[in-house]
Amino acid sequence: MKNTFGQSLTVTLFGESHGAAVGAVVDGLAPGLPVSRGAIERQLSRRRPSDALATARRETDHFEILSGVFNDRTTGTPLCLVIPNENTRSGDYQYGLARPSHADYTAYCKYHGFEDYRGGGHFSGRITAALVAVGGILLPALERCGIALGTHILRCGGIADRDFSDLSQDFAILCNAPLPVLDTQRGEAMAAQILAAAQAGDSVGGVTQTAVTGLPAGLGEPWFDSVEGLLSHALFSLGGVKGVEFGAGFAMAELRGSACNDPFRTENSRIVTETNRSGGINGGITNGMPVVFQCAVKPTPSISQPQKTVDFRTNTDAELTIHGRHDPAIIRRICPVIDSVTAIVLCDLLAQRCGTDWLAQEGTKCSTD
Amino acid sequence: MKNTFGQSLTVTLFGESHGAAVGAVVDGLAPGLPVSRGAIERQLSRRRPSDALATARRETDHFEILSGVFNDRTTGTPLCLVIPNENTRSGDYQYGLARPSHADYTAYCKYHGFEDYRGGGHFSGRITAALVAVGGILLPALERCGIALGTHILRCGGIADRDFSDLSQDFAILCNAPLPVLDTQRGEAMAAQILAAAQAGDSVGGVTQTAVTGLPAGLGEPWFDSVEGLLSHALFSLGGVKGVEFGAGFAMAELRGSACNDPFRTENSRIVTETNRSGGINGGITNGMPVVFQCAVKPTPSISQPQKTVDFRTNTDAELTIHGRHDPAIIRRICPVIDSVTAIVLCDLLAQRCGTDWLAQEGTKCSTD
Amino acid sequence: MKNTFGQSLTVTLFGESHGAAVGAVVDGLAPGLPVSRGAIERQLSRRRPSDALATARRETDHFEILSGVFNDRTTGTPLCLVIPNENTRSGDYQYGLARPSHADYTAYCKYHGFEDYRGGGHFSGRITAALVAVGGILLPALERCGIALGTHILRCGGIADRDFSDLSQDFAILCNAPLPVLDTQRGEAMAAQILAAAQAGDSVGGVTQTAVTGLPAGLGEPWFDSVEGLLSHALFSLGGVKGVEFGAGFAMAELRGSACNDPFRTENSRIVTETNRSGGINGGITNGMPVVFQCAVKPTPSISQPQKTVDFRTNTDAELTIHGRHDPAIIRRICPVIDSVTAIVLCDLLAQRCGTDWLAQEGTKCSTD
Amino acid sequence: MKNTFGQSLTVTLFGESHGAAVGAVVDGLAPGLPVSRGAIERQLSRRRPSDALATARRETDHFEILSGVFNDRTTGTPLCLVIPNENTRSGDYQYGLARPSHADYTAYCKYHGFEDYRGGGHFSGRITAALVAVGGILLPALERCGIALGTHILRCGGIADRDFSDLSQDFAILCNAPLPVLDTQRGEAMAAQILAAAQAGDSVGGVTQTAVTGLPAGLGEPWFDSVEGLLSHALFSLGGVKGVEFGAGFAMAELRGSACNDPFRTENSRIVTETNRSGGINGGITNGMPVVFQCAVKPTPSISQPQKTVDFRTNTDAELTIHGRHDPAIIRRICPVIDSVTAIVLCDLLAQRCGTDWLAQEGTKCSTD
Repeated sequence: MKNTFGQSLTVTLFGESHGAAVGAVVDGLAPGLPVSRGAIERQLSRRRPSDALATARRETDHFEILSGVFNDRTTGTPLCLVIPNENTRSGDYQYGLARPSHADYTAYCKYHGFEDYRGGGHFSGRITAALVAVGGILLPALERCGIALGTHILRCGGIADRDFSDLSQDFAILCNAPLPVLDTQRGEAMAAQILAAAQAGDSVGGVTQTAVTGLPAGLGEPWFDSVEGLLSHALFSLGGVKGVEFGAGFAMAELRGSACNDPFRTENSRIVTETNRSGGINGGITNGMPVVFQCAVKPTPSISQPQKTVDFRTNTDAELTIHGRHDPAIIRRICPVIDSVTAIVLCDLLAQRCGTDWLAQEGTKCSTD
Repeated sequence: MKNTFGQSLTVTLFGESHGAAVGAVVDGLAPGLPVSRGAIERQLSRRRPSDALATARRETDHFEILSGVFNDRTTGTPLCLVIPNENTRSGDYQYGLARPSHADYTAYCKYHGFEDYRGGGHFSGRITAALVAVGGILLPALERCGIALGTHILRCGGIADRDFSDLSQDFAILCNAPLPVLDTQRGEAMAAQILAAAQAGDSVGGVTQTAVTGLPAGLGEPWFDSVEGLLSHALFSLGGVKGVEFGAGFAMAELRGSACNDPFRTENSRIVTETNRSGGINGGITNGMPVVFQCAVKPTPSISQPQKTVDFRTNTDAELTIHGRHDPAIIRRICPVIDSVTAIVLCDLLAQRCGTDWLAQEGTKCSTD
Repeated sequence: MKNTFGQSLTVTLFGESHGAAVGAVVDGLAPGLPVSRGAIERQLSRRRPSDALATARRETDHFEILSGVFNDRTTGTPLCLVIPNENTRSGDYQYGLARPSHADYTAYCKYHGFEDYRGGGHFSGRITAALVAVGGILLPALERCGIALGTHILRCGGIADRDFSDLSQDFAILCNAPLPVLDTQRGEAMAAQILAAAQAGDSVGGVTQTAVTGLPAGLGEPWFDSVEGLLSHALFSLGGVKGVEFGAGFAMAELRGSACNDPFRTENSRIVTETNRSGGINGGITNGMPVVFQCAVKPTPSISQPQKTVDFRTNTDAELTIHGRHDPAIIRRICPVIDSVTAIVLCDLLAQRCGTDWLAQEGTKCSTD
Repeated sequence: MKNTFGQSLTVTLFGESHGAAVGAVVDGLAPGLPVSRGAIERQLSRRRPSDALATARRETDHFEILSGVFNDRTTGTPLCLVIPNENTRSGDYQYGLARPSHADYTAYCKYHGFEDYRGGGHFSGRITAALVAVGGILLPALERCGIALGTHILRCGGIADRDFSDLSQDFAILCNAPLPVLDTQRGEAMAAQILAAAQAGDSVGGVTQTAVTGLPAGLGEPWFDSVEGLLSHALFSLGGVKGVEFGAGFAMAELRGSACNDPFRTENSRIVTETNRSGGINGGITNGMPVVFQCAVKPTPSISQPQKTVDFRTNTDAELTIHGRHDPAIIRRICPVIDSVTAIVLCDLLAQRCGTDWLAQEGTKCSTD
């Protein structure tokens, strides 16, 4: 299905960085979900570059909802949301010189030169604005059903944030943080690292961590459509993500089973696990514990240092210096995008499991409980 | 689609560990692909436990092809492959006592007690035999089109294998290795670690690494159906996989852009990258370099030490000792499974891109070149 | 998805007429549905040729369930059902001579000569045995949820059956009728016509009519996945079906709106329509009235009169006489197949709408009500 | 997938009659296809009401392409096309009074009162403008590959058009006809019937016939994704379509096999059939003859005579008189819509079969030939 994700709830992305607009069509939404322009704007502002750490492209992210909303609620028919492009300066880009670790060359291979290359075209991070706007509808809907989530920068520029502890309080912190970290001081240290890289004409990568609470046990499928498989499928859409791990992830490789297994126990007559190295998922299916995962985010490939490359039109070696300013760390802006992608996958899973109307029926327990 | 994966080429898995059989239906195969029982058996024997390192369950993996093959070639209609179960001893399992980090409890939540719990049922690693058999058809087909791949244990029990170097030679080594490693001595050290864990009634995890050569540039989609997204979706089906990373993956988090980007250059008038930290994929699309990824494999959750757990029928705390012998390290048997899953994803991508018949047209270049 | 149908509940067909077996994998079944061998056999016996009107191929339709059933109930994991082939005489078929209005030539065009041509291969009506067996599981499940259906021969050989009247009684008649008609006398007249055609070495076509009661209002989608679209998609799989119409269908073409519209009215505080020319569907969505549709079934293309054709291997004109005996009217055996296909589509629609477990929750109202 | 159709080439529809806009996202287009505003406008003008026979709503169908086109060619990334709504007068509609044989009541059942009911909302024929605009891109692309198609009114108001004869000339006639008929005189008789119905405050139905030439043999799948299944699936989206038949369709029911079968013969060393009662499809797969099908189109349900109905908010009987003017015959405006829907299905089938780039490679033979 290419640029569409989901089975019961589906999201189709469209748009190019310097074209008329970017946007998304969301189909399969439960009818009657409140749609608040304020909530969408709040999500968009979390993603928008707004300070010294970010790109100079100023985006107001004005958006229009063309369909699927009536009297401020979802109708249940496809919702098309459009974010017109503004402030585009295509002159900055030189067609043919492949920016290293960008998609310029692979786009050329795939689209034979017909791609809209301006500003990265359909590959641009700009398209994530549409994902984030969708999150502005789905995240509040999940919350009304008791499902909350949040993403913080776990590591960046050699600095580690503290781990999640009280998830409900931590999510509240992340909602309002200018930099999505749990520990403000460590956040300042990260910001210093990002600025240092920027001053060196360079960029930094990092690791994000996401947690989800309130999911019923029993979501997901044993083969192929495991919760891990569906989340990673959607997360790897994001240009910067090059790794996804659940719970202890790659650290499990160094553990013995006796130290890695999560013992079950009862707690107030509910079944829980003592530890959560499985990240809330056993055999591809939620176990009722928080779903926890980490994404490896590569350093922004756009740096201002000169780089060796090729001109793919002429098949010759070349040197490239990328002008203009770029995010020295996409990791901070990727956090709200990851929140939205996670919301999309979960809403789809819940709609498949519990029926198309479930998300609108606040207070009703999903039959998986 | 639950237990089905793929769009043009699809694989549907069925079966339970102690039921009549496990198997797979493969649809969308190009007509005319040679199907060799020998090649399938070779793949199955790579997965089969055969020595002191492995479970005591002896499986001959006798298989039958019920449809889709005529005169030793694929017909192009659905191929159903069945592996009857033998040597099952259901008495070993005690329903209600959730094995920690296994799917017993999540299966109960999802299937409300109707699941076939014997031997892990549909969640059992036994089902991967069907995946591996499918690989016995697809891997030779890819090879005839110049696409080769292999998987080795990159780390296990604190021991690291050497990195891939000459991929063609390395794939040949892996084909015949009793333990899928590139460096025999380090393999022996790993085996010693696995045996030590087994003797302690414990198990070990590890990391696998897979490389693919010969893929044309231009496969994959920018959003959602990126090559990373599709591969990870399928790989996370495997019970033991808890992390997937491409190229430098999580290590990118510690790098600056200038050290992480892969500079392009020409080589014999082809465009290549000097390094391959991107794992052969930019913007979700192959760039013509080898596709390289790593999977984090957790330690086998079945260990013979007593573990704390619950009885989910009665909602009470309990202690569990798992009897019988189990693989102290699923990582070695997972390598051929990963090869097969990779082949399935790639054959699907190629069929989508180049048409349903492409895989059978040996020597024809895919139009993405 | 080729040989797979459905989104939440999916059915994948496999098998060839003279291969090892035909069968189906059903995924997405609610866990806990009773599976009765007797009920499956009853459906299979409705489809099986059993008298002078039918082909001489004797099929016992012995079947095996390889997975997905435990303690006589669905587990919720994929159910693989296999019907081994017996009594095959491949010698009757001559490769290269295209039987007119059969798929021999189109199979050759699609599969380039690799198709299993024996007995029609994967195109054979034999594959419908697998569909009918699936119906033996789904039809009783629907009935337990208050949804009943039945198919009769509306017209055949110039004879018309009476229309449906009391649907509940009519379905009971059809369950046990040797020829699926509502009026026994007209059925005898039809049988006489079929026999007359058979004696002339010829065959007859006809029209079937299906009705479904008990469906909640609100199933289906406005665009593309309308109830009409999904049902017709699946029904046109059946080799003999060349037309599908809902309600008054093609007869509407001759009506004015004032004579065609179905006026609404209340009846015991429920909303009903006075007439049902819409066949229970408005705007692609069920309106709570019985869903009613007709299928045009072509005369069996296998006739024993000599026919003009080509040899597609040599591209030359030829004459063909088909030996062996064949059904002079597939229409009677297609009725239970249509029942099963209808059940598959409805179970999928209900699972999408009401969640994956709904079909097992007898007595629970679907949220669409 | 609800409001999305297709597998390799997909179309997602959105919009409501009186909302901001209607539109479509087309994904999977071959890169490099010419996109001509003129060609799109020509298709739109064929659908637009323009004379005494049509509704008084004046639509200019101004459209914008938001993405997926660069330098007047498709980029290969999703193309979003938007047609803003103008000239909407919502006051004409009275919520609660179900218009007979319209979707008002079923929309209420499905969307629980959250539907945008104004002007029929997402169920309005207005959405077909987006389908027609997509046809303005796909139909010329097919033509460049030698695939042509056309639709005429076969019967309407008791008048029959002549049959297709020379398809190439007939398609040319239909391109320019104000009323899509092959015989101008019979067209005038039809127009008189339509006007007579309109003057009586009534409406008429009819039957359309579509033919497609130039398709390679070998497209389609034996089960489920037959060409008939896919075409009918998409065609039944259209509100007015209540029946679809291929070739001789329902007339086959009255024929014996000897009179129904299409004998094969060679013609200039190509294999053809003498007759085409199969409508160019055997066993679900194209046989190289023209694909021919008919759609039953119901009379417009909006008539100005008073009708009995209910108020579904209060569950009471009511009488309804629909004011405003409405198309007395949707059949004439549905012809270009059917052309577009057919083009969508065929482009998807060809992209699946021959690869995603095929449609842009003018002059290249699809490998099915």
